Order: sequence, then structure tokens, then C-alpha cells
Amino acid sequence: MAHLMSTSCSIEISSSYRPCGQPLNQDRTVLPNSFTIKTSKSPFKRLVSKGHRAGRSCVVLATAAPVSKEVSANPRSGSDRSPNDSSKPQRVMVIGGDGYCGWATALHLSNKGYEVAIVDSLVRRLFDHQLGLDSLTPISSIHNRLRCWKAISGKTIELYIGDICDFEFLSETFNSFEPDAVVHFGEQRSAPYSMIDRSRAVFTQKNNVIGTLNVLFAIKEFREECHLVKLGTMGEYGTPNIDIEEGYITISHNGRTDTLPYPKQASSFYHLSKVHDSNNIAFTCKAWGIRATDLNQGVVYGVKTDETSMHEQLCNRLDYDGVFGTALNRFCVQAAVGHPLTVYGKGGQTRGYLDIRDTVQCVELAIANPAKPGEFRVFNQFTEQFSVNELAALVTKAGQKLGLDVQTISVPNPRVEAEEHYYNAKHTKLIELGLKPHLLSDSLLDSLLNFAIEFKDRVDTKQIMPSVSWKKIGVKPQTVPAN
Amino acid sequence: MAHLMSTSCSIEISSSYRPCGQPLNQDRTVLPNSFTIKTSKSPFKRLVSKGHRAGRSCVVLATAAPVSKEVSANPRSGSDRSPNDSSKPQRVMVIGGDGYCGWATALHLSNKGYEVAIVDSLVRRLFDHQLGLDSLTPISSIHNRLRCWKAISGKTIELYIGDICDFEFLSETFNSFEPDAVVHFGEQRSAPYSMIDRSRAVFTQKNNVIGTLNVLFAIKEFREECHLVKLGTMGEYGTPNIDIEEGYITISHNGRTDTLPYPKQASSFYHLSKVHDSNNIAFTCKAWGIRATDLNQGVVYGVKTDETSMHEQLCNRLDYDGVFGTALNRFCVQAAVGHPLTVYGKGGQTRGYLDIRDTVQCVELAIANPAKPGEFRVFNQFTEQFSVNELAALVTKAGQKLGLDVQTISVPNPRVEAEEHYYNAKHTKLIELGLKPHLLSDSLLDSLLNFAIEFKDRVDTKQIMPSVSWKKIGVKPQTVPAN
Repeated sequence: MAHLMSTSCSIEISSSYRPCGQPLNQDRTVLPNSFTIKTSKSPFKRLVSKGHRAGRSCVVLATAAPVSKEVSANPRSGSDRSPNDSSKPQRVMVIGGDGYCGWATALHLSNKGYEVAIVDSLVRRLFDHQLGLDSLTPISSIHNRLRCWKAISGKTIELYIGDICDFEFLSETFNSFEPDAVVHFGEQRSAPYSMIDRSRAVFTQKNNVIGTLNVLFAIKEFREECHLVKLGTMGEYGTPNIDIEEGYITISHNGRTDTLPYPKQASSFYHLSKVHDSNNIAFTCKAWGIRATDLNQGVVYGVKTDETSMHEQLCNRLDYDGVFGTALNRFCVQAAVGHPLTVYGKGGQTRGYLDIRDTVQCVELAIANPAKPGEFRVFNQFTEQFSVNELAALVTKAGQKLGLDVQTISVPNPRVEAEEHYYNAKHTKLIELGLKPHLLSDSLLDSLLNFAIEFKDRVDTKQIMPSVSWKKIGVKPQTVPAN
Repeated sequence: MAHLMSTSCSIEISSSYRPCGQPLNQDRTVLPNSFTIKTSKSPFKRLVSKGHRAGRSCVVLATAAPVSKEVSANPRSGSDRSPNDSSKPQRVMVIGGDGYCGWATALHLSNKGYEVAIVDSLVRRLFDHQLGLDSLTPISSIHNRLRCWKAISGKTIELYIGDICDFEFLSETFNSFEPDAVVHFGEQRSAPYSMIDRSRAVFTQKNNVIGTLNVLFAIKEFREECHLVKLGTMGEYGTPNIDIEEGYITISHNGRTDTLPYPKQASSFYHLSKVHDSNNIAFTCKAWGIRATDLNQGVVYGVKTDETSMHEQLCNRLDYDGVFGTALNRFCVQAAVGHPLTVYGKGGQTRGYLDIRDTVQCVELAIANPAKPGEFRVFNQFTEQFSVNELAALVTKAGQKLGLDVQTISVPNPRVEAEEHYYNAKHTKLIELGLKPHLLSDSLLDSLLNFAIEFKDRVDTKQIMPSVSWKKIGVKPQTVPAN
């Protein structure tokens, strides 16, 4: 914190926060009604000088009131990490920590005794504004989320608001927080978003690739022992007609053998950006000795984790729209509001899926068991495979149990992808590290459906149908009206 | 030309050109002493509005005096293309047409009867200024080059000066020139340049990836039948321990078989940018039906082609410095000035090489035999493999024949690469299309050495040693003093 502390000034901001009427899973908690933002030298100067990035990044570098000393004095408080893990990383920076997976992960790591900082530009919230979308669940501001977490858990999560494509900002976060591990969720993560128009395709690749390059340079320059835990996607592999391995494949060819990066066949500008990242990271591991874990994550479903369930102010976002929504979550919301389940094309598209409670578990396992210096480690992060038709059948069955009339329709596939194909992807490495999967069960589907029913009055049915076509993408900037 | 013609204004610029005293290979030619630049609506407005791109792009959209009608009236004039090839593309846009390979290619295609436009930001010339480097050969301005070509051949090459990362500019070039094929050399093409510092690494990936994305969108939007001929590099493959195929490899794995993209292991931010391009292009071929040929080119040597030899004003650049110089060309210049040949490390690094006369031949073959709609075709574009030690031995022998005392030294390898390795790369597809290779011969080496000797007074020996380290790259902007 040397740089920020030495130049910081405190600004007391009166908060609009009201303690919630319905705290979940626990007694009512009285939260503080003021909030301290620590800013670097001149936030106003930064506002002006970074004005050309408007629309992409918040410009005020802010940290929540630091309690590092407090945490350091009792680093195990509230932790269930074993006392023998003193060599394990303590300080974890979660880039993109305000998003769907990032928020759940930041809380989980904080709860487990890690010192956590969130780095986020909050641009994901801007996308919703720009496209006229909204989370099914009402979500609090990041500031209120962190205030609530502090009140409930006694733990502080530091907050740096800014764009990691701005290397000056990223440098400050590294030198201020001094992470032992960086979990990088901070990318534009929607395939349809990347296929809206040329400018969003370019934004996605520029934002994701340059942001990750900057993180790699920051680690090399400032924290060379820092372990990068990078979120990739199973979509990098596409749907080859052979088994998908975890990152590498041993090939025998013309009498010789080598183990090489598994061939990638990504099918959107978003998925491609993750392939580019993987290639860039692999190079820096080899050239600079970076230690990195690439988590090729499947499709995440669910919304609650132990931590986000503690208070409604901690509630995670749940996207059901055609741009940011993903298959199973979308189906549950559709079933809840009586909209037919929208299967794209033939519905034979098979992918790996996992519960968001396993996302946070996997990330923690990766951090607790870091890659070696120079190692580019790839884990396929999912627990089960389903075809879209199988998911639709499961949701139909679960909905009927709850008395819902669930229909399914096939809609023209907006994507370019195989609708019937072989799919068998390996996913043993995280199991070997200790992952205990939450498999998709009737009870989880019940819970998710009930959750969707609880918030069904917030559903905008015009957001449900796919509005982005892989083939019709053009160069003119498009808005995406909710049909 | 509709848009540009309807809004253009002519500016007569008095030229500093003087007819050359020593025209090569032909009689003295009197060249015009004025030059017409056609500009779009308001060049000054563009200058201002695009000012934030300063340092990366020229901002004036310029075309050489168009003679499209003249050429259209007699499209075969000066052509040796057969009269039966009416289905072949006529209009070829050469992006990066002021560079080493691009200039030779533009002239070659023009000489063969294609209607050619050069699109170039001229930023390669800026790199030389910024890094204190210079071509061994004196090169004329692009304007004088084109004026000279017009005077000698009677053929006009149109010129659009601007940055293809600026989509507004690129759109204008597409709608004005209406290409049937685009040859895309317009990328930052030096691995050491991309490893100087963070900002140049980021520049390289942003410039190359976004520029190519823009070209793909321009083809989709404006010229969907246009064939993209994209320059990749053999360096995308790295040095696997198995044979390198041309773009794809058939893999049998656990009892199943598929043909997949050949795994890539690039080893600089530059080489990685080409891998990113290849993945992006492959996707658009599949999703949009783009027709593309990816030319994975080896290391190019030589300087003269039939066309660049016609007049000294047409002379190509020859780089011998540690940033832009490539192995064989550098060795010839080192031998000419009595500098030891600089072998990096053990010198067992083996790569594919080709004569620049084959570069232009390969590009023409690709254009004349276009990829099908939706096809992503990959050719390995080189003619012979050599290790660095083998090249040093060949130059030593050729130098001794000319009475030069040629020494070789091993310098610490600034790169991260295997110095002894298996290497066997396939390169049959261009041969099958009709490539007649110019193999590296004693006479070519004699000629190249004599050429280097002719210009040896222009050599700055401080530029010769490698000045960029793969491992020492940092985040602070570096200049690269010539040691």
C-alpha cells in the first residue's frame, strides 16, 4: 500500500444504504452508514486525463478502507485453511470481481481467509444499461456489496475501480496490493456480445487480449512469483471428433512423437479472444517463467453460494437474456415465466457444465496448489456433460414437479456450430486436486426454479429470444433492442 | 472511386524529384515532375479528428492520379497472363505495399497486368526514424516510387495512405478500389520489435489483430467474393518434434480420428499475433464464407526482383540491423563490412527460407488460384531449410571467393528458442500450384554479397548486434540505441 497510503486522502461519502429488511440466513445485521474511499493523488486529474476511455472504464482508483494490518495480525481469523499451509498465497487479486463468477469467488476466498482485492472497471454493468438488459436478481452496487460483506463477516475486500487495459492503473493496483495470486475474470465474457457488430467484436478482442497482456507484464515487472489463475473456456476447443484433453495432446506422426498444445477451434470472437490469451500466456510461462493456470471453464449454472446467500445485499447476478444468459439458467427462468424453453437448432450441442459453487471451489484449489514457475497448466473446469436437449428435458421434468407447464421450442440457431457431434472432454485434474463436485440434481433444479419463480416479476420476456446472429453481424454499430 | 471522385479536390504539389543519373537495366527515363494527390473531403479535418492516432497512422487519404479508365480500356496491356484467365481477379489491394515484401509484390502484380492499389500507413518508415535505423539501400518515398513506376511501365498503382485499424479509412479504400483480392502484408513484422517493451508488444498485437479483423469485416460487408491472401509466418509453428504440415494435421486419438488445425507454439509477441490472426480468419471462413489463403512464410532473403531492378528509384529496402534484419541478409552485410557473422547461441536453429523473387511468385500463384468461398487454405511458403550454422558456412565460402575475410562469432542468444532441434516442414502446395523455386545458389550469394559491398559505406555497424532481449523486456518504454 506504500504508494497509495503515502499519497491518499480520505473522502467521507454519505451512503444511501439502508439496512435490508430481509437479511437471509441470519439475524439482521446493522451495516455502517458511511464509507471511506481512498483515492490516489488526484482523482479529478485522473478523471480528466483518462476521459478518452470513457465508456469503458471507471477512472477513480478506489480502495475500500484498508484493514490489512487487522487481517495480518490474525491472518487465520474465520479461515478453515489448515494451519500447515503457511506457504500458500495469502493475498489474492480478483480481476472482474464484480461479475457473476468473480463476485462469488471474491467472497468465497475472503471467507476462506485470503486477503482479497477486487479490481473491476464495472463495465459489465454498463453493458446492461447500453443493451437494455438487467439481471433477474436485483444486485447492489459494488460499494454496498463490500460494505455489507464487511458488516457480516468482519472482513475487508479492497476495491480498485479501473480498467486493466490502462497499464498505469494496473501498475498501481499491483504495487499497492502486492498480490500472491491473481484470478483473472476481467474479460468481456459473452459470445453473442462479441458478435453484435464490428465495434464490439474489436472491443472484445482488444479488451481481453490487451488486458491479459498487461497482467502478464505486471506480474513480470512487479510480482514475479505471483500465480496467474486465468479463466479460459471449454469453448476454445470447439467440438473436435476426438476426445478433448486438458490443454495438451500427445501426437504420434510419421514415426515421431511430441506433446503439443491441444488444437483450438473457437467459434466466436469472444471464444477466440480466450484462445489468443492462452497462447500469449503459454509463451510468457516459457520465456519469463510465469506460473499460470488456465481454467477452461464450462457453462456455469446456479446463483447461490454459501457466501452470496448470507444477505440479500450479497446476492449474485443471474442473466437470462439472449446476450449474457447461458443455457441452463436461461431455461429455468423461461420455465418460471411460462416461456417455452428455446433450444437452438437441433439441440444436440453438448458442452461441459458446472455449478457456481464448484467454480469458486476450483479457483480456490488452483490458488492453494499453484503452478510451478514456468509452468502453463491447463485444467478443464466442469463436472458433467449435457446436450441442450438433455437440459431441456431435465428442466421440463423439474418444472412439472412444481406444477409448471413447460414447453420447448426449437428456434433457428443464431450461432455457427455443429448441432449434432461427438463430445468427450477430460476433466480429472481438478478432481485430483480435491474438487468435490455439486452434480446437477433434482434438488438443485428445484431450488433454481423456485429462485426464478421468486423473481419472475422482474423478467422482461422481450430479452429472452436470441437477438444476435453469427452470420448477420455487420460493421454498423448496433443496439440490441430486446425484440 | 465514386465516393472519392465525387468529393475529391486536386492539389498540385511541386516535386523534389530529379530524374536519376543512373537508371538501371534500361535507358534513362524522364519522369513527370509534378504529382497529383487526390484527397477525400477534408484532409485537414481528418488530420485534426484523427490526431489521437498520431505516431501510428498517416491521416491523409491519398490516391495517385487515377488512371483506372485507361487501364480498363486495355486491361491486358503489358500483361503476360493468358487470355483465358478472364475469371481471375483483376484488382488487387496490397496492404503494406511500401514494405520489403509488399513493395516487391505490388510491382510484380502490376507488371503482370493486375490493377494494383497500395494501402499503407508508412509506419514502417517511422519505426526506422524512432529506433535510429536505416535500410542498407537508399529507398525513395512511396510517392516517387510510384511516379517512377508509372514512367517506366506506363502502369498506375493507386495509393491510399492510412491505417487499416481505422475502419472508416479502410471502408473508403474498399469502396473506392473495389478489390477482387487483398494481399495483407500490413502488419508489424519484427519479432525483436515486439519484444522491446510492453508498449511495443501491445502495439504489435493490437495493430496486427485489429487490422486483420477490420479487413475481414470490410470483405464481409463490401466485397464478399474478395479473396484474402494473408501473410502468416512459419514461426507460428515453433519447433515441434514432429513433421510440420501445412496448416492442418490428422490426429488419431483413443480410437477416433479428426483433421484439426496444426498446433501452434509461437515464440514472440509478433509471432503470436500471426497465430491470433490465423485463428480469427479460420473462424470467419467458417462463419461467413470468407475465402482466405494463409501464407506461412519462411525467412525471406535477397533484394532484387525483375521489377525493383528496373530503376534505382524502385530499389527495395534491405534491413541488416538487429531489430528488422533477418538471418541471411544480415550475414551478407556483415561479411561485406568485415563484421563477424553473428550466430545466436549454438546456431542449430533451423528454419525455412526463400528468395524474395519466390515471395512475389507465391503471392501471384495464390491470387491466380483463389481459395473457395468458406475455405481457409494454408500454404507453407518457403523453398529450403537451413540451420543458422549452415547459412554462416555458405556466406563464409561465398565471401572467401570474393576475397573477403569472413569470421563467425557466437553471441548470447537474445531469444528464447531451442538451439538444436528436429525440423521438417512440408511445403508442397505452392509447388503443386506451379512455383518454380529460386534455390539459394553460389551465384545468388555472390550477387547479394556484391550488392552489400556496393552499399557498404551506408552500413552503421552499431546497428548490427542484437539489442533486444526476450527475457529482459520490461514495462518502461525503451528506445533502442544502436549500441
